[in-house]
Formats: sequence, structure tokens, C-alpha cells
Amino acid sequence: MRGNPIGIFDSGIGGLTVVKHLQRLLPNENLVYFGDTARVPYGTRSDKLIKQYALEDAAFLQQFDIKMLVIACNTASAVAVDLLKKSLDIPVTGVIIPGVEAAIRSTKTNKIGVIGTSATIGSRAYHTRIKQRAPQVRVFGQPCPLLIPLVEEGWIEGEVTRLAIRHYLSPLLENDIDTLILGCTHFPVLSEAIASVTGPSVRLIDSGEEAALITRKILQELDLSNADNNSPQTQFYVSDIPQKFDEVGTRFLGKPVVNAGRVDFDAFLMEIGEKIYEPLNK
Amino acid sequence: MRGNPIGIFDSGIGGLTVVKHLQRLLPNENLVYFGDTARVPYGTRSDKLIKQYALEDAAFLQQFDIKMLVIACNTASAVAVDLLKKSLDIPVTGVIIPGVEAAIRSTKTNKIGVIGTSATIGSRAYHTRIKQRAPQVRVFGQPCPLLIPLVEEGWIEGEVTRLAIRHYLSPLLENDIDTLILGCTHFPVLSEAIASVTGPSVRLIDSGEEAALITRKILQELDLSNADNNSPQTQFYVSDIPQKFDEVGTRFLGKPVVNAGRVDFDAFLMEIGEKIYEPLNK
Repeated sequence: MRGNPIGIFDSGIGGLTVVKHLQRLLPNENLVYFGDTARVPYGTRSDKLIKQYALEDAAFLQQFDIKMLVIACNTASAVAVDLLKKSLDIPVTGVIIPGVEAAIRSTKTNKIGVIGTSATIGSRAYHTRIKQRAPQVRVFGQPCPLLIPLVEEGWIEGEVTRLAIRHYLSPLLENDIDTLILGCTHFPVLSEAIASVTGPSVRLIDSGEEAALITRKILQELDLSNADNNSPQTQFYVSDIPQKFDEVGTRFLGKPVVNAGRVDFDAFLMEIGEKIYEPLNK
Repeated sequence: MRGNPIGIFDSGIGGLTVVKHLQRLLPNENLVYFGDTARVPYGTRSDKLIKQYALEDAAFLQQFDIKMLVIACNTASAVAVDLLKKSLDIPVTGVIIPGVEAAIRSTKTNKIGVIGTSATIGSRAYHTRIKQRAPQVRVFGQPCPLLIPLVEEGWIEGEVTRLAIRHYLSPLLENDIDTLILGCTHFPVLSEAIASVTGPSVRLIDSGEEAALITRKILQELDLSNADNNSPQTQFYVSDIPQKFDEVGTRFLGKPVVNAGRVDFDAFLMEIGEKIYEPLNK
């Protein structure tokens, strides 16, 4: 069981920012990543569809006998983490709760900002969980949908990106936040540009990095760590090889994505049948 | 047959800009629109996947006994129009050739610019067809991927949008184009902002409007016009009801989208089986 891989899925290839942290923090673990590039983005889909996709993505990864599942996608974490925790018999973590815990530890002013897709912010997933854990904290959410295509197009710096960040962050900064949760896998790529707008008084929390830390902790507690593995493997699967995959993937992973395999996901779904959807009707 | 609807599909709801022109130019026709909102955008997918999607979208519309098919999506027109013309037994038009014809009629300097998604520009679909028809014309293509999310987010004017447009159009303007093809359904929404950057010496060609004009011509030629219809209907179907559907739909159609129905597209695909994919293997 210890040698079994950790499964990670994301709506696309932004989740590679989480893989980057997993590889750094858990250098002996085998990883298997699924990016649902044929159906990205999840952030604009309905909740019903996001839950269905999350069940399908998890079912795909379970073929590899994964010992743990990391939902790298904030949208899927916000909408489907409870569903997956209930329906799978392995440990599951999303990126929301790890980001929440880190932000609560960080804030001194009890004012936390959260940025993400419209779906993530609209779900109030960060907001609700912060309030449960620390009712005294005020939470200011801001959807930043345009930052995702800016990252994917490689507009990491420059006037357009800075103006868009300023546009989005101004209301949060006016509310004197001292902690800002980067609630989307894409945003760590923009952390320098974001920091140049927020200034040094605001601490940036990378939910993906926090999820990698929690993953390490869970594996240690359950005695599932693969400490002795000298030839760790990371396998990458995507449901489509989009244009500029290599360029964008490298931006997220911090190094080239080697040997990504395209999955015929429609064929996979045909094969596994209806059973995986049962949790949707409970 | 005359009373049968015209079918229109698009990767999402941007194709409603084409419906707007069809309703204006063909006020007596019944229309049925399918927007593949569960799988939008097509512009970043592989050619293989785009062809598969186009066959599926057309198969969905054929359930309504459409008398003609309009591919409103530039990406699908660029990649799949020939495939659909070969595999369907009704007239088919995309938006590329209509845009090409109008641009060639317009240019005096024989320098035409084309803007679109990365897939549309990368396919060189406009370029190749302009060169076939008018070899003396020089064509300057520019992918403008960020303009799509800017429109969807409603950033129709303002500094960020103007800077992004200027960034994309500068190389075209330096080449003295006098005609600019708006090669994406979303761009007509930005035509004022685009015109403010290009100035009055550049004529903007709306490929969707040109496709509606060609559709009218084809129906007249084939004696398929529905002139006597006093209660024309437009039915809207989408594969997901995305967030802000009403707001964004209204922006494209120019009026509220009434009675859009969500299709369980996965269930539809299960039912129709493998036969529709045969043209992919020819």
C-alpha cells in the first residue's frame, strides 16, 4: 500500500502547481495526475456538472490503486470534496481546508481576502469554512476570472495583468486584509505580480502548497508514507492534449511535463458504467 | 421542408451573435440553436476532438429535421466544415468563407487582418481561403485569446480591454491593413472598442453577419425560404447552464434568451451510438 501512488486531479493543467509542491515535499512518493483538459474549465459549470466530473475524475485515478486523493482544483474542492470523502474509502483532501487553516494561522488583523474563480468565490467555500473555524475573522471574497486566461496565455507580467490585478484587489486592500488566499491553482504563477500590487504587508497563501503539506501529514499519521522509494514516478494523464500544452505545463510544474498520456475519457466513461454516479442521488 | 428550422451550433453562447443576424435577416425562419456550453471552449482543443464535437453537435440538431446547418463557431468552421459538408445531406455553411468573401470585396490595399482564437488563426483557415480566392492579397493573422474571456466577463470597455486590443492589433496596423475580419463570435461585442483602436480607415467584417447573409442566399436559391411563416420560433439548447448565462446571453443576442433548455448531452451521445463517428475514419 505504501508504494501505491497518490492521485491528483484537476480540471486542467493548473493542478501541476500542486504536483510541484508534492514532488518537493514528498520526493519519494509515486504520483499519478489526471488533468481534465477536454472539459476545462470547471469554474463556469453548474454545481451538478462539477460533482459528476469529480466522481468521474476520481474513478479514473482509482484504476491506479491510489492510496490517497488530492483534489487540486479549487472549484471541484469547493463543490465536491464532501461527496468524494463520503464515496471513496481512501483519504481525500481538497485545497480549501488546507488554505483556510494556513490563512487563520497567518492573520493578525482578522481580515482575510480570498481570490478565485467565480464558482469558487460564489460557493462561499472558503468563507464558510473560515467562519466555522474562526468566527471573529472577516472574509472578503473576490472572483478574478480573467487572471486564469492571463496566466494560460503567459501574460505573467506587464501592464494589462497589473491593471487587472489592481482592479480585482482594490476592494480587498481597502478593507485592510493582511492575508490573501490564492484560491486557484493558476494564481501562484502570478504571485510576484500580485505581491507588487498588495505590497509586503499582505501575506499570500498558496492553497496548493498547503494541500501538499496536509497530504504529507495525513500519510505520516496513517503510516502510508513511501520513505524508501528510490525511483519515484510521476505519471501524467490528460483528457485532451491542448495547444501549447508543453509551454503552459512547464509554467505550472516549473519543469517540462514528461510523457503526458492522452486518455480517451469518453471510452473510459462508457466502460465504467453508471455505478460511479450513485453518490449523486443520495 | 420550408417550415423546417435552420440549425445553428456553437461551442458556447457566442454563436448567439449569429442568431441575432439570422433573426434580423430572416425574420420568418424557425431556428434551433445548440450551444455546447458543457465543453466550451473549442479553441484550445485538438483538431481531432473538435471534429468529433462538430459531428456530435450536428447530430443533435438533426433530430429537429433542420433544413440547413450554420456552424457559428469559427474554430469548428475552420477545422470541421468540410467534414460536415461531406457527411450531411443538407446545405452547410460555416463562418469562414462568408467572412473571406466580404473581406476580399472590402479591401482596397489588398491587406487584410484576421483576429480569432489561437485555433482559428493557427489553422490558417482564413489565410488559405483568402489566398485561394485572391492570391494578390496579403493576410495578417493575430490570435487574440484574451478577448474572449474579457467579453464573457463584460469588460467591454475600459483600460484593460483597450490595452489588450491595442497589444494584439498593433502588428496588424503597422502592416497597413484596411480590412479586419472579426474571426470569433465574441468580437462583434467589442466592435466599438476595436474601432476606437483601429480608427475609421479599417473596415471591420463580422463573419457571423456574413454567414447569415449567405444563409439567406442559399435558402433563396434552393427555394427553401419560409416566407409565409407568421409565428417564427427560435429554440435554444445548451449542454450546461453556466453561471451568468442570462447576462452573457443577453450581451450576445441583444435581448434576453427565452426558454433555453439544458440537454443531457452525455445521455444523447450514449443513445445515438457510434455511427455518427464514421466520417472521422474516412
